[in-house]
Amino acid sequence: MKIAVDAMGGDFAPANIIEGAKLALTAFPAIRKMALVGDEAAVRAECDRVGLRDRRVELVPAADVVLMTDSAVQAVRRKKQSSINVAVDLVKNGDCDAVVSAGHTGAAVASATIKLRTLPGVGRAGIASPFPNEYGVCHLIDAGANVDSRPVHLFQHAVMGSVYARHVLGRSDPVVGLMANGEEEGKGNDATREAFALLKASKLNFRGNVEGRDLFMSPIDVIAIDGFCGNLVLKGCEATAKVLFKWLKQELKSTPFRTLGAIMAKGAFKDTYRKSSYETYGGSPLLGVNGIVVIAHGSSSALAIKNAIRVGVEAITHAVNPHIEEEIARYGTVVT
Amino acid sequence: MKIAVDAMGGDFAPANIIEGAKLALTAFPAIRKMALVGDEAAVRAECDRVGLRDRRVELVPAADVVLMTDSAVQAVRRKKQSSINVAVDLVKNGDCDAVVSAGHTGAAVASATIKLRTLPGVGRAGIASPFPNEYGVCHLIDAGANVDSRPVHLFQHAVMGSVYARHVLGRSDPVVGLMANGEEEGKGNDATREAFALLKASKLNFRGNVEGRDLFMSPIDVIAIDGFCGNLVLKGCEATAKVLFKWLKQELKSTPFRTLGAIMAKGAFKDTYRKSSYETYGGSPLLGVNGIVVIAHGSSSALAIKNAIRVGVEAITHAVNPHIEEEIARYGTVVT
Repeated sequence: MKIAVDAMGGDFAPANIIEGAKLALTAFPAIRKMALVGDEAAVRAECDRVGLRDRRVELVPAADVVLMTDSAVQAVRRKKQSSINVAVDLVKNGDCDAVVSAGHTGAAVASATIKLRTLPGVGRAGIASPFPNEYGVCHLIDAGANVDSRPVHLFQHAVMGSVYARHVLGRSDPVVGLMANGEEEGKGNDATREAFALLKASKLNFRGNVEGRDLFMSPIDVIAIDGFCGNLVLKGCEATAKVLFKWLKQELKSTPFRTLGAIMAKGAFKDTYRKSSYETYGGSPLLGVNGIVVIAHGSSSALAIKNAIRVGVEAITHAVNPHIEEEIARYGTVVT
Repeated sequence: MKIAVDAMGGDFAPANIIEGAKLALTAFPAIRKMALVGDEAAVRAECDRVGLRDRRVELVPAADVVLMTDSAVQAVRRKKQSSINVAVDLVKNGDCDAVVSAGHTGAAVASATIKLRTLPGVGRAGIASPFPNEYGVCHLIDAGANVDSRPVHLFQHAVMGSVYARHVLGRSDPVVGLMANGEEEGKGNDATREAFALLKASKLNFRGNVEGRDLFMSPIDVIAIDGFCGNLVLKGCEATAKVLFKWLKQELKSTPFRTLGAIMAKGAFKDTYRKSSYETYGGSPLLGVNGIVVIAHGSSSALAIKNAIRVGVEAITHAVNPHIEEEIARYGTVVT
C-alpha cells in the first residue's frame, strides 16, 4: 500500500512528522511506498537529521503550506500547491491509497471532500475521533468535519462508525449510541430526536441516547453526534485532561515530601497518560469520503504520527470504504 | 433572607441535603429562615440524626417526589405536591427568596419557568455552570435548561452571565466568549455566527469565539453556548475528570512502591480534586427566571449542598435579577 503524508501539517512539522514516518516505516512493512509531501529542502533536511533512509520514501514537492489562520475552503481553492492539496491529489489520482495530515483540520476536510467527493449515498463525511474507554475505544463521529447536521447525517454517521468498528476494529456487533442531554428516549434536540427514530428503526445495534460518561465508562463502540457539538465535546474533554494533569503536577511539586512521593509513583502517571492520550490512538479517520483520509492532532508527536499512519494502514487493509458504500446503500430508502 | 431547600432532590437525599443545610446555617448568618421541603418524617429523622436543631428551620411537607425517570413537564403538571414544586411555590408566593435543588434538573427548570416565568424581556432561562479556571471561575451558560437555542437566546445568555459575573462575583468588566468549533470569526454554526454578530455589536466585553481550553486556561468569565451543547460539554468534562482519577488510582495501586509514593503525595490528589470538583462550587444559578433558583449536582455531598446554598445567598445579596432585568431592557431593540 502507498501512503501520502502531509509533511508540513501540524504544530511541530516537519520534524515530528518525519520522525513519525520513520517509526511507521519500521513498524508497518505493508507500506510499500510513502510520499512525504512538502517543502523539499525542509523535508530532506529532517530526513537527514533523523536518519530516514528508506527506498520506499519518495519526496513530493509542495510549494505552499496552509496556515492555521487560513479559512478552510480558501486554503483549498487558492493554495492549490499546499502540502495537503498535493497529498490529497496523490490519492485522487490513484498514486496513493491514503493520506495522513496533522495540519489545519478544516483544510484537510475541505480538500478531501472537494477533491475526492463523498462516497455514493453519503450526505456528509464525519471525523471518527477515538476516545479511550474502559472497554477499549469508543469513536465519536462527527468530531468536527461539518456543522449543522441534519438527522439523516447523524444516522449515516452511526452507520459509518459502525462499519468502521466492525470491519477495521473487529467488533462483531458494534454498539451504537446517540449523544444527547439525557438518556431517556424523549431527550435531545429536534435533530437528535429524529435521528433517534431512524436509528431505532434500523438494524444497527442501537443502545439509545447516551451521555458524556458513556464515552469512557460504557461498552459502546460508536457515538453519533453532530460535528459542531462533537468538536466542542472533544475539545472540552481534551482540555479537562490537560488542566487536571497540570494542576496535579503543580500540587505534587508544592512540597518536597509530595515530590518524593510523586517520583516513586512516576510510572503510574506515565501509564495513565499513555492510556488517556491521543498519541496512543494517533488519528481520526474521516469517514464517508472516496479515499482514506486520517486527521491527526495538530500537536502530534512522532508517536502520534506513527499511530495515525497505522490508522490509515488498517483502513486500507480492511477496505473500509467499499463496506461503507454497501451499508449506506442498504439504507438507501432512508437517506434519500 | 429565606431559603427553600428541596430536601428530597438528589441521589443522596434527604441525608446529604440536611447535612448540607446544617453546614449552611452555621456558615451563613444572613439566612433568617430555611424551609426544608419534603417528606416530613424522613426530613425530621435526618435532622435528628445530624443534630440539626435551629429555630430558623421550618419543615414544609411535600407528599411527592420527582423520580429521575419522570419527564420534566409531567413532573410539574402531575406531581403538584412534589418537593421541587412546593419549594418553587414558596418562592412564587414570596415566602422564600431562593430555592435550591439537587433533584431532577429538567423538573427544577420546568417548575421554575412554568411557575415563576422568565424575567421581562428574557426569552429563555439558562443554567450558568461554574468551571474552575486558572484565573478563578468561568461560567458556561446555558448548561442544559433548553435545547435548540436561537441566536438571540445565546446573546441573552451572554448578557445574563455577564451581569452575574459583575454583580455577584465582582468582576469589573466581565470577559465574554462564545463557544464554537474554532476561534476565527467565521467559525461556528448558523446560530453562533448570528449570535457572534449580536455580541460584537453590543457593549459587552466580547472576546470572540472560544474553545474547550478557554473554559480552564483563559481569563474568561462567561461562555455562551446553547443548552444542548452546553450540557454535552459539561458532562463530557465531568466524565473526563472522573475517569482520569479512576485510572490514575488503579495505576497507583498496581505496585506497592507506587502505592507508597501515592500515600506520600496524598495531599496533592486531594487538593487537585478540591480545586476541580463541583463540590467546591456547589451549584449553578438558573438565570433569567423571576426568582432565585440554584441547581445543585445530582450526586451532591453535604459540602456541595452547603455551597449551592451559598450561591443562592450571594444571588439574593447582590440582587442579581433586577440587574438582569435592567441589562436585558437596555438591549431591548435586539431581543424583540
